[in-house]
Amino acid sequence: LRLDEIETPALILDRSTLERNLARLRSHIHLLGGSLRPHVKTAKSIDVVRRALVGEPGGITVSTLKEAEYFFGHGIRDIVYAVAIAPTKLAHVADLIRRGAALTILLDDLAAVSAASQAATSARVLIPTLIELDVDGHRSGVRPESDLLLEIGRAIAAAPGLQLRGVLTHAGESYNCRASAAIRAMADRERLGAMRGAERLRSAGFDVPTISVGSTPTAEFTESLEGVTEVRAGVYMFQDLVMAGIGVCQIDEIALSVLVSVIGHQPEKGWIITDGGWTALAAERDLPTPGVDQGYGLARSIAGEALTDDLVVRGINQEHGIIARRDGRMLNANKYPIGSMLRVLPIHACATASQHSEYHVVEGRNLDVLEMWPRINGWR
Amino acid sequence: LRLDEIETPALILDRSTLERNLARLRSHIHLLGGSLRPHVKTAKSIDVVRRALVGEPGGITVSTLKEAEYFFGHGIRDIVYAVAIAPTKLAHVADLIRRGAALTILLDDLAAVSAASQAATSARVLIPTLIELDVDGHRSGVRPESDLLLEIGRAIAAAPGLQLRGVLTHAGESYNCRASAAIRAMADRERLGAMRGAERLRSAGFDVPTISVGSTPTAEFTESLEGVTEVRAGVYMFQDLVMAGIGVCQIDEIALSVLVSVIGHQPEKGWIITDGGWTALAAERDLPTPGVDQGYGLARSIAGEALTDDLVVRGINQEHGIIARRDGRMLNANKYPIGSMLRVLPIHACATASQHSEYHVVEGRNLDVLEMWPRINGWR
Repeated sequence: LRLDEIETPALILDRSTLERNLARLRSHIHLLGGSLRPHVKTAKSIDVVRRALVGEPGGITVSTLKEAEYFFGHGIRDIVYAVAIAPTKLAHVADLIRRGAALTILLDDLAAVSAASQAATSARVLIPTLIELDVDGHRSGVRPESDLLLEIGRAIAAAPGLQLRGVLTHAGESYNCRASAAIRAMADRERLGAMRGAERLRSAGFDVPTISVGSTPTAEFTESLEGVTEVRAGVYMFQDLVMAGIGVCQIDEIALSVLVSVIGHQPEKGWIITDGGWTALAAERDLPTPGVDQGYGLARSIAGEALTDDLVVRGINQEHGIIARRDGRMLNANKYPIGSMLRVLPIHACATASQHSEYHVVEGRNLDVLEMWPRINGWR
Repeated sequence: LRLDEIETPALILDRSTLERNLARLRSHIHLLGGSLRPHVKTAKSIDVVRRALVGEPGGITVSTLKEAEYFFGHGIRDIVYAVAIAPTKLAHVADLIRRGAALTILLDDLAAVSAASQAATSARVLIPTLIELDVDGHRSGVRPESDLLLEIGRAIAAAPGLQLRGVLTHAGESYNCRASAAIRAMADRERLGAMRGAERLRSAGFDVPTISVGSTPTAEFTESLEGVTEVRAGVYMFQDLVMAGIGVCQIDEIALSVLVSVIGHQPEKGWIITDGGWTALAAERDLPTPGVDQGYGLARSIAGEALTDDLVVRGINQEHGIIARRDGRMLNANKYPIGSMLRVLPIHACATASQHSEYHVVEGRNLDVLEMWPRINGWR
């Protein structure tokens, strides 16, 4: 199978770029004396994650229990479920633990501690837990300096069926940083916040074996991993236009793209109509790509090369994409005849990948599809 | 199974609201002497579409060949694939026709006519075709007054393996209308443009049995179907906040919602953290809901009732949603304890539904899940 024979749209993954991205972060983290617990929410594919685990302890981070089931089914036992637990999911968590998964859950609320303890005791399992810390006001977690942190620590320690394993934080605000210095500062804040939370728990008499930090920007830019026990990151495997926009990668380091076909033209508007709409690309647009509007994605040739015309996806409907020059000038539609194909680089790789159920694996400028790697989506 | 036992997030469909929406448009179209060819791209479920076809001729509109395969597999033969054809899909089209599907494709380009003719002759099938007309400058199609329309008509008539069945248009700009008068005017424009294109083809000597028009706003608001042979619409089955925003439906007529669990609080910010992120809701936000910012969705109770607090989804990450008061004021988090559930009404029903693989079917305020209806997604 070759790319030019595929029924488009289709998700394309460049294996050589993927391997380079994996090697780069691995080497950076290892030089700093750390280790990676890859976040599998971007890739959701055992073929990708096996490659990400080379040289690492073997644990992963998941965002859904379906990911936990899938990767556990592929032999991965050490799993951190890095979303605060919903009580209706606790029976499922207990069941995974009973079947042998070392599944760790996240807590940042006293009511959730009670619910988790009840589920653990009723299922007669021990649920390992991490306390989620909020170091940047981004979303979830308790502040490292808060009284609530120690209350939750005491509640977990006192709760039958629960085991306190440590603290976890995610500097999600790093996606809004505009310069490498700001990302480095955010990495320090993430690491020092996690260490401070751990130190306060230790001073209160608790054992804190795990101090888990991470986001792709902070992992790529951190200059120290002193005090932390593991780093989590997911997008780094594929990279995307948001990561390129904040300086985490170059555009040529983006491993993921969506293959689309030209299905029409509106010559007087300078539009190329393609079959890559929001079902294929995801409707991500508003994420920060400072200085440059990439629309809903940047167009490259079928072989992944930069085009002399600077084409972006200007509009999307369910199964239609409108590609046009970024500068709005007219283009020579004869260069993009009906049936010719383009590859669209994603704004947000997690979102784009989640619209597909498989990767068409290629390497470099070669149009041959070398392998098909399935991926999972959803919750059931 | 009850809603409060489900592992969230989950897609919920209120069957009684669905049936009312179906009956309302059916009765409107039938009173005008027309008939519906439902667009299945919103629902992608045979259980929904069977209900939409009650009292109709039985044909459907699809946006992908996977939809064509799925519905053909469920016994529906008369299918219009309403996206201009990509040449790599023509062998698949021919195969469906060979297996008995009355699958009609869309053409608006001379090069596509050649490709379709070649595919038809090499597969020894006859491919029925419609010419796509552009009545509003929205996206694809040829202008009813253009020379190109007649050129394409002549090319199809002369092309071995192709059969000209008529014209099709979609007034996609109706989604940007702000008042019912504007939608009515758009419905006239859609209908008269389609009739004008058909008339010019007829004057040139071609048979034009089909004049197909439609979008949910124009279908709901049109006051005449004189001259058209069928109306296409899809979103009307579920409705959504965009349709409510432009006056096509009331908020209580939205049949679709996403069930989410409260998994945390940030009391000093007035935030409820839920497990409904963009994987569950879709990242649609920028569609027109004039006058009212519905965020990424409007929150209701687990039973679908309006809340006394006016809560919208303020932020979304992959598996996290941040719900807060629309007016930004603080809220009493005790009313939304950990583990309690909310239902989020979608901004754009097609996009939200496409994030899920099944409908949990309920009726009214009853929390019992009455049926599970599977749905399809993707292209393969």
